[in-house]
Amino acid sequence: MALSTQPYKGARDFFPEEKRLQKYMFGTLRKVVESYGYEEYDAPILEPLDMYLAKSGDEIVNDQTYTFEDRGGRRVAIRPEMTPTVSRMVASKRQELGYPVRWYSIPNLWRYERPQRGRLREHWQLNVDIFGLEDMKAEMELIQVADSILKNFGATHDMYTIKVNSRKLMDFIMHDYLKLTPVQMHMVSKLIDRMHKMPSETFEAEAEAIFTPSQREAGAFNKLVGLLKIKQIHHLPEVIRESEPAKELKRLIDMLKDARVPNVAFDITVMRGFDYYTGIVFEMFDNHPDNNRAMMGGGRYDGLVGLFGVEPVPTVGFGWGDVTLQNFLEGHSLLPNLRPETDVYVVLIGDVYGKAQKVIDELREMGARVAVDLSDRKPDKQIKAAVKKGIHYAMFIGEKELKDEQYEVKNLITGASETHSASRIVSIVTDYRGSNDDL
Amino acid sequence: MALSTQPYKGARDFFPEEKRLQKYMFGTLRKVVESYGYEEYDAPILEPLDMYLAKSGDEIVNDQTYTFEDRGGRRVAIRPEMTPTVSRMVASKRQELGYPVRWYSIPNLWRYERPQRGRLREHWQLNVDIFGLEDMKAEMELIQVADSILKNFGATHDMYTIKVNSRKLMDFIMHDYLKLTPVQMHMVSKLIDRMHKMPSETFEAEAEAIFTPSQREAGAFNKLVGLLKIKQIHHLPEVIRESEPAKELKRLIDMLKDARVPNVAFDITVMRGFDYYTGIVFEMFDNHPDNNRAMMGGGRYDGLVGLFGVEPVPTVGFGWGDVTLQNFLEGHSLLPNLRPETDVYVVLIGDVYGKAQKVIDELREMGARVAVDLSDRKPDKQIKAAVKKGIHYAMFIGEKELKDEQYEVKNLITGASETHSASRIVSIVTDYRGSNDDL
Repeated sequence: MALSTQPYKGARDFFPEEKRLQKYMFGTLRKVVESYGYEEYDAPILEPLDMYLAKSGDEIVNDQTYTFEDRGGRRVAIRPEMTPTVSRMVASKRQELGYPVRWYSIPNLWRYERPQRGRLREHWQLNVDIFGLEDMKAEMELIQVADSILKNFGATHDMYTIKVNSRKLMDFIMHDYLKLTPVQMHMVSKLIDRMHKMPSETFEAEAEAIFTPSQREAGAFNKLVGLLKIKQIHHLPEVIRESEPAKELKRLIDMLKDARVPNVAFDITVMRGFDYYTGIVFEMFDNHPDNNRAMMGGGRYDGLVGLFGVEPVPTVGFGWGDVTLQNFLEGHSLLPNLRPETDVYVVLIGDVYGKAQKVIDELREMGARVAVDLSDRKPDKQIKAAVKKGIHYAMFIGEKELKDEQYEVKNLITGASETHSASRIVSIVTDYRGSNDDL
Repeated sequence: MALSTQPYKGARDFFPEEKRLQKYMFGTLRKVVESYGYEEYDAPILEPLDMYLAKSGDEIVNDQTYTFEDRGGRRVAIRPEMTPTVSRMVASKRQELGYPVRWYSIPNLWRYERPQRGRLREHWQLNVDIFGLEDMKAEMELIQVADSILKNFGATHDMYTIKVNSRKLMDFIMHDYLKLTPVQMHMVSKLIDRMHKMPSETFEAEAEAIFTPSQREAGAFNKLVGLLKIKQIHHLPEVIRESEPAKELKRLIDMLKDARVPNVAFDITVMRGFDYYTGIVFEMFDNHPDNNRAMMGGGRYDGLVGLFGVEPVPTVGFGWGDVTLQNFLEGHSLLPNLRPETDVYVVLIGDVYGKAQKVIDELREMGARVAVDLSDRKPDKQIKAAVKKGIHYAMFIGEKELKDEQYEVKNLITGASETHSASRIVSIVTDYRGSNDDL
């Protein structure tokens, strides 16, 4: 029986066209984060499973992570997220690094979930982290980085919203204001994290069930429902509004507005799924009506590095998946027309393969990316292959051309032909590479 | 108990320094293969296990591949090699592609083996493949690509040797000349593939045991031992020398010499481990005495695409691991001094964070990669962090500097300071990025 040509379920093949788009997206991401002084790192896709059991959150580890036992009996995970890995790496060089440490990576991550739009089993995710700063300038910088990324892709501030909240604020609300127990706090947090994925009646029924009758009688449940509808920090009850976490959030929003990031808003329902967050959390929301969801999410997690047996390091980081980014760019028509990597397709006329080597080498040495049709087919069949590949120019090399050192170069889009020296042809075909007009 | 900071056994963390080296190596690989018209593709690291059972070779699948059953009961492998994957992808678009198809990728591959120098459990491997050519020009081009890669890294032809052989020639020798059975042929092939990893006495004893007494009496075993010592095609017995596969090999070597690749040699012991090769096979050997081993290997495999239920496509490809490439470049002192991605480290003097945002934004917009020390430490502590990171320049921003729009920029290697406008500083720090002299 023939083998299937399909990739593994929920995962993607990247044919050259798709890879080209990925390279464009990742190239822009790298350029922007490096402009803020971030350095790239990487790590193995397999990690000891224990690392995730510590802090990632139960659902992610138990239900969604690829795990297996290796031949040496070790429990191994295919990494579902990068945060534990980068914390491990910082911990391993805790003393040697110059702080603040600014690191980024674009790892491939795997989760065992039912494939659906924007939620495959694998994706690539930009991870940007800053280590060593307790001050809110760290959160501020990361949100600026994310904002700069979209700006560099050509987005404007009306296309997305940055939503901020604070785990400390939510703890204050749940513990000090609503008087919930730690177990109830955890349950309510998890429920709020999922609230936009369910009808509001379902949410309210499930939330109500978490409260004890006496808590309900004391009005705690109604207070929660009311709080979750508040859209502005200054509409919060005074005792909450005047708490340190609320004031910190307000300061962050004001600082961002001063730094030309106006589309930032308080959102009390932003929780982030991971258990390890300890302070401010944030998400970037796509405002497109067809794609109204978080693209990027992150926050402060001051406790993770310390799990590796070293002194803790205050940390803020975010993750941004390639699928949600691509959906955003497509939805807002921000993807450019990407051109194939090959500048010119050489059509050999007659038996000139050996003799043509020299000029072909020269084309490459002068900087052109040259594919040679080695099939010995008729020229029109060779040109058809170039057209299929989307290559813009064909160049013809036969006995006469080699003798004259003048070659016909044909624009495969317009059909126009000209005859030039090899060096002139290199400048024609490489000029096109850089230009932005599509004929 | 604290979690371990070590990566998974036999796998590597890439801290920014190591990642920088990888980016340099991969960037050079991409530049060269794209200059030959190859387009990049990629695919999931998980593949159905069945795909490897078909043709990769028993040892690789049974003993060396990471396999597990997923939650849906599917048998999955972490890919040990890329060739079956790229064959699957070509098969899935068999009719739509323009031939010859030239594709490359730099996938991460995993094998379960005892970690040792140059043989980790994971590596990255450049895979370059050309589909659709029966003619030997395909092998020719791939060897030229490999040769151009080393040339672009600054290597000279005395540093390495390209060894070529032919599966068809070996089949002719074993079947027609030595009269071995198919089972014996397979055993002898596998043994020759491992012969340089064992003492010659062990090899000869194991080889002799494969022959029957009557074959040994007829001199077949002695003939094999004699043949394996031959270094030149024209020293082979006439009946072998005059066979089609031998003449084809000779033609390839001559063509390569004509095309300025003189360091190519026939090597009858080059077999390549995979079962799927069908014609010419080749390896690139590092001539460095401390690292005398194959870096790159490949050959023709005409049968693999056809396993996916489509008409077969003649194919030649090679794989080249990052570890062996790095060993080569280190052994021959070909690695340049790589500079950190960050051009300048901004030291804030006093409480100027908010006011300094504008000039820092401008530095980035003008193309500089700028890290800002947000720690509020004393300037000398901030500079220490920059030195730890290997950043070449520090720039000081305080009240006075902001008022004058003139900033002190300090070369952290020489200690020299100058005062300039922001735009002048951008050109100083970005000029350094491109220059090659290390102070």
